[in-house]
Order: sequence, then structure tokens, then C-alpha cells
Amino acid sequence: MKLVMIRHGQSQWNLENRFTGWKDVDLSEQGVEEAKKAGEQLKEDGFTFDIAYTSYQKRAIKTLNIVLEEIDELYIPVKKSWRLNERHYGALQGLNKAETAKKYGDEQVHIWRRSFDVPPPPLDDDDERNVKFDPKYKNLNPSDLPKGESLKDTINRVIPFWDSDISKDIKEGKNVIIAAHGNSLRALIKYLLNIDNKRILDLNLPTGVPLIFEIDKDLKITKSPELF
Amino acid sequence: MKLVMIRHGQSQWNLENRFTGWKDVDLSEQGVEEAKKAGEQLKEDGFTFDIAYTSYQKRAIKTLNIVLEEIDELYIPVKKSWRLNERHYGALQGLNKAETAKKYGDEQVHIWRRSFDVPPPPLDDDDERNVKFDPKYKNLNPSDLPKGESLKDTINRVIPFWDSDISKDIKEGKNVIIAAHGNSLRALIKYLLNIDNKRILDLNLPTGVPLIFEIDKDLKITKSPELF
Repeated sequence: MKLVMIRHGQSQWNLENRFTGWKDVDLSEQGVEEAKKAGEQLKEDGFTFDIAYTSYQKRAIKTLNIVLEEIDELYIPVKKSWRLNERHYGALQGLNKAETAKKYGDEQVHIWRRSFDVPPPPLDDDDERNVKFDPKYKNLNPSDLPKGESLKDTINRVIPFWDSDISKDIKEGKNVIIAAHGNSLRALIKYLLNIDNKRILDLNLPTGVPLIFEIDKDLKITKSPELF
Repeated sequence: MKLVMIRHGQSQWNLENRFTGWKDVDLSEQGVEEAKKAGEQLKEDGFTFDIAYTSYQKRAIKTLNIVLEEIDELYIPVKKSWRLNERHYGALQGLNKAETAKKYGDEQVHIWRRSFDVPPPPLDDDDERNVKFDPKYKNLNPSDLPKGESLKDTINRVIPFWDSDISKDIKEGKNVIIAAHGNSLRALIKYLLNIDNKRILDLNLPTGVPLIFEIDKDLKITKSPELF
């Protein structure tokens, strides 16, 4: 079966070089173009899907909708889950990366961005950026609401969704497309390709580019794109 | 609970005055604008939804996506069903309404368009417009594939989906939006408001305008827009 992953197209905050995380920013114009191109490419290469997955965040959902429109498969079922959201960037969300480096020092920012298990400073309970104030997440178990995640934390909430949902579709022989985020896709790729905690930090996914895997019914990846 | 129905915005074939049915035509530019306006109005009026329903046809799906984007609820679950598709117009699909009148006579066309239980001439088995050639419907039971429907036939495949899916969400207290088609929405409205077979023929829904119902957990409509 085909398993295609696509990181959303460029967002407004990618463009402004700000920590985004769970902030629900929109695609930039370039991001929309990237998504269209991705769809055109998949169409040219004859891809069809039985089901699509995405996050609760509009930059991923819109990327998916644009791709599905291009390949004329808007009608396929789309499942959305907060578990495919971007890594939650805690108190860094909204800050410009250069400013953050000035404030906390380059090395600290490097640790937050490029360590496996160090979370960013958490959001205060009453910070208006706190997930509990967002109606999107009103039905979630409060203990599931992140205040700031390491990559490890992100992996720990992505993989249960792979197990409970996506993997079942693949076992049934379905072709799957997942439109998600830099870190939720890293989580899946680490898990599927058994990449170690250090090496995964070097994996940087481009925006709006379909990554094409082949996978068998035992969930073994049989073909993988060049990732590093 | 709120139950909002919206007929898709103007399609290319609405514009060209052609029988559309299951042909998967796109929205016209005006149709996109109508959907945007509908979303803006719902936003202004403070509507929020727990779940959305639509058909397998892109003019309805895109209308829904545009509305959900406007009200910032792209993340809610969307269920798609072929049972919410437009009435299947059989061998008339693709024909211009004026040409059809010339060919078959005004009276015959009036009967096809405005009778309750007279289906249009059916598609031949090998007609390329036949639903069995469309990959969208490859998973359907062959006996479910229409070759030309009367309004009665349309009702007979819409209502089971109301019973099996939509009504259950309403019983759970959910606010529901349905983006669909002139005749699949007629079917629902006839059923919910108990409108007789003759009167329903006078119900003409405008494109891209939200119809706002209130409904209780016993599935009784407690508030309804002016429809006639």
C-alpha cells in the first residue's frame, strides 16, 4: 500500500520565523501554492487514496483539502485528530526565533529546538495561549492537554493514534495520506523506520512536499524516500 | 439544537442551465462567493457546530469547506455520504434545459422536473455517464447505484441516512450542519416537516443560503425558516 505523508505548506509564522506549535495560523500564499503543486504531482503520478488523516490545525487541513481537490478525491473520508497536531511549543509559542535567542541565549534555544526530551518552558495556567481556552479542544480529557512538549512528548501522543486508527486502515489494504506537521510526522517516521533518538533530530521535513512510502500489511515499510 | 442546511453555491452547470444530477461539476465563481457569504453570516450570528455532513459531490463539499473556514471550524468531523447526493437525472444529465424542452416537449420536461414519482429516462448500461464507471462509487452495493431517480427515489435513499447517522447526532445534543443539494435537502425537509407529495414540488431552495432549523432531542422541528 501507499502511505503518503505531507507536511503542511508554508504558514504565516513559518514565514515570520516564529515558534508556532498549537497556534492555529493559516497558510501563507506560498503555502497554498506548495499544496497545489503537491497535489498536481500526486495526480501526475497517478496516486489515489482510500482515506486521509490530518490534525485539528487549519494549515494541515487546508493543505489536505487543496491536495484532495487537485487529485479529484475530495469525497474520500477524512479523519482529524489533535494527536497529529504540531509539537506544543509552550511559552515559546508566538515568539520570533531570533528574539528568543537574544532573550534566552542561542544555546538554550538550540536545546529546546534540537533535544529529544527537553520540553520548552510551559505555559502558565492563566496564559491566554493555554489550550484549555481553545474551543477546539473542549472535548479532550484535561490530562491530555499539553502546556509544552518535547519531541518525546509529541511521539508519546502521536503513536497511540497510529496504533488505534491509521495502522488499521493499512492492515485493511487502504492507501493512506496524512497531512500534518514537522514534528508529528517526525514522530511517525521515527517509529516506522526505527530511527534512534539522536538521529531523528537531524530529520527536517520540507513544507508541502509529499513523502512517499510503501508499506505492507504487517506495517513494514518496504520503500522509503531519501530523508536525510 | 441547531440544524443548518445549505444547498451548495451556484455550480458551473447551474450557470449553464444544464441538468446536473450526479455529474461532479465544480462551483462557479459566484458559487464560491455565495458560500463565503453564507459562512460570514453564520459567523456573525454566532453559530458553532459539532459535526458536519455532506455528499460525495465537490460542489457541496467545497461549499462546506468554505463555510467551515469562515466560521473557523475546519477541525470538526465531516461525514460524507453518497446518500446526500443530488437527485440522479438519468439520461438528462448534461443536457441543457432549453434543448431538452425542444427535444422532448415542454410538458414532458415539466413532468420530469416537477412530478413526485416519475423518473427521467434511465442511463443505458454502457453510457459513459453511468455511475458504475465512476471510481467514487466503487465501494457501493451495485443495487444502490441509480440510473435515474424521481424525487421519491431520492427520498428513499436519503432518509435511511438521516435515520442511521444524522438523527443520532441530534439525539446526542449536537449542532449539525448539512451541505447538500436541492433535492436531497428537499427530501430531508419533506420528511422533517411532514410536507405532502404535491406541496414539496413547490419548494425551491436558493443556492448558498443557510436554512436554520431548531430541533429537539425527539427530532421535532421547533423552529423553521420561511420556506415557501
